[in-house]
Amino acid sequence: MPRRIVILGSTGSIGRSTIDVIDALGDEYQFEGLAAGSQWELLAEQVNRCRPAAAAIADPAFEARLRAQVNGHTEISSGPAALCELVARPACDFVVSAIVGSAGLPATLAAIRAGRNVGLANKEALVAAGAVLIPEARRTGARILPIDSEHSAIFQAMQAGRRQEVRCVYLTASGGPFRTWSREQLESATPQDALQHPTWNMGPKITVDSATMMNKALEIIEATWLFDLNPADIQVLVHPESIVHSMVEFCDGSIIAQMGSPDMRTPIQYALSYPQRLPGCGQRLDLASMRRLHFEPPDLDRFPALRLGYEAAERRGTAGAALNGANEEAVAAFRAGKLRFSDITRVVEVALGGHPFVAHPSLEDVQRVDAWARSEVARCLKA
Amino acid sequence: MPRRIVILGSTGSIGRSTIDVIDALGDEYQFEGLAAGSQWELLAEQVNRCRPAAAAIADPAFEARLRAQVNGHTEISSGPAALCELVARPACDFVVSAIVGSAGLPATLAAIRAGRNVGLANKEALVAAGAVLIPEARRTGARILPIDSEHSAIFQAMQAGRRQEVRCVYLTASGGPFRTWSREQLESATPQDALQHPTWNMGPKITVDSATMMNKALEIIEATWLFDLNPADIQVLVHPESIVHSMVEFCDGSIIAQMGSPDMRTPIQYALSYPQRLPGCGQRLDLASMRRLHFEPPDLDRFPALRLGYEAAERRGTAGAALNGANEEAVAAFRAGKLRFSDITRVVEVALGGHPFVAHPSLEDVQRVDAWARSEVARCLKA
Repeated sequence: MPRRIVILGSTGSIGRSTIDVIDALGDEYQFEGLAAGSQWELLAEQVNRCRPAAAAIADPAFEARLRAQVNGHTEISSGPAALCELVARPACDFVVSAIVGSAGLPATLAAIRAGRNVGLANKEALVAAGAVLIPEARRTGARILPIDSEHSAIFQAMQAGRRQEVRCVYLTASGGPFRTWSREQLESATPQDALQHPTWNMGPKITVDSATMMNKALEIIEATWLFDLNPADIQVLVHPESIVHSMVEFCDGSIIAQMGSPDMRTPIQYALSYPQRLPGCGQRLDLASMRRLHFEPPDLDRFPALRLGYEAAERRGTAGAALNGANEEAVAAFRAGKLRFSDITRVVEVALGGHPFVAHPSLEDVQRVDAWARSEVARCLKA
Repeated sequence: MPRRIVILGSTGSIGRSTIDVIDALGDEYQFEGLAAGSQWELLAEQVNRCRPAAAAIADPAFEARLRAQVNGHTEISSGPAALCELVARPACDFVVSAIVGSAGLPATLAAIRAGRNVGLANKEALVAAGAVLIPEARRTGARILPIDSEHSAIFQAMQAGRRQEVRCVYLTASGGPFRTWSREQLESATPQDALQHPTWNMGPKITVDSATMMNKALEIIEATWLFDLNPADIQVLVHPESIVHSMVEFCDGSIIAQMGSPDMRTPIQYALSYPQRLPGCGQRLDLASMRRLHFEPPDLDRFPALRLGYEAAERRGTAGAALNGANEEAVAAFRAGKLRFSDITRVVEVALGGHPFVAHPSLEDVQRVDAWARSEVARCLKA
């Protein structure tokens, strides 16, 4: 029986790579559904090429245009609820959750509630609502498989031992485009500067997060939820070549690392094919690029976002929702030229410190804190 | 039930480390037997400290002196057959095979014939007689667990996938003390030069093998037997820091590496505790030593031993026995000042090329070829 996949966020960077992977894997992997936010033209092209059973666009304003462009074999729907219905379709075996930001949360939760295995690229959903998603996955038996390259590496490395034998995790970070910039240079970094990532070709939001290292803060929180780790057992290592995607140290002193080209198709495929590995379209590592690998501790003074990541990971509850909501809003303001680069982390710190914390939140609590954090950033912008 | 261990070669470098590991692991691991070649004084000390049920010394000339030194609780025996009897003791669960060279072959084979799981540090036994040992292990169900750090790394990395998903293996090599020496310098290298290993503290025979890179040639052959690999799927990578102990590339492009301090206690312990991992006495990797890792292709012109390793691995049968027997003899001659460093590989090449090849050898065929190769080296020395 082929696996039938729903892709949430098919028009984004991860969504497009997922389509490449499924195409390369052959008939055992088929498209059940595609969903996008507002990029209806690209979605229409994807629908006509991939011929999924269904497709949904989150913004209802584009439904008519999408419908006019696609051939007759695909059911079309729109609105946020349509995404939740897509993942609950009876024929769906697996959901790739690749909507950026907390916008992806409702449909990711719907997939988990429906007991679907989820390949999670949408780290913000887990960062904001790990306290909701993880117990729900435990209840329904849905498996959350990481698609983030670092977390895929940790998941793969963990196969070489048992969970209780893990001593700690080394989460590698490229260091982003500003790895070698001084504190003064960072104050005046522009959106153009921040979007020049040295090793990974990714969407704009994650690229800015990589520049502040808030991406690594989010990943610390994500790792605590995915692998039930103590934040103190996660060590960030700056590794500019982005070849070693992360490492796990076991109690006997062995460190197992997963390495490869910086190509998201490899972790996407592993999530889809797990527990198998299959030949696919991921780029093979060119050994010449591996001649020198560097590792260094991160500079918490220049990249204070990391400290916030540890803080939010320790507090759990709604702390991740506050950090993530504020960060999304701050990154948008920075990209719009309304906030200085170094102020991104400052306003996130204000929101994290001041938010109305709930230790055991419901989805509504998470959404309330997310909204509060965004309004707090807006308030800072006006001040 | 505790595991009861027999150590073949307890007075050598691996044997002593094995005793440290068993001491650190606590009551679940106990000494059933210790065996040594001729170092009776150290063996007596070990027997009095470890209190094994039995001990054997290969050279019968030392039995009386050994017996006079040890306390009454341990059965003492001597002669090569005594080692074979030690591993077949009914209470023995696991044999650490750590005699250097093809001298370790009969007792290793006896352990496999008795169906004992074997932690194999004695790579020469497998290199010379893989064609005998591997089918025998299949017949009796004995499991051969690698203790060589590279092969332990490959074995550990392979846990992250299935055997049929392995694309190739990267066998790392420190490059030895002569990694940066010119061909001219190599011609006049002395035993003192060859015994200065940059990263590993090992016995003298393997240290010279590391200098010629014949050790890596032996390891290529060892890996083909242990993991049923094609020699073409084994790539040697020079890695001077000896932190990445080896790597496995899977069909999806993921490379899984095992890393750690250059400390043999970690792979010894993994072989003993497999499939568990336990906290032990292996040195934890100091991350500062991991700041820069280098990898480079080996220089087959300066280190032609590697080519011989591939050749012997391709030919199988008695080719490994010829290569190994000639090498053991040549290393002994070099250490005795009777052979120039660069002639070690030359005489091995002569023996490998000219030996009376048997494709599907018996143990006797292997021993005949081993003896022939040694006499061929002696002939070259006189010529």
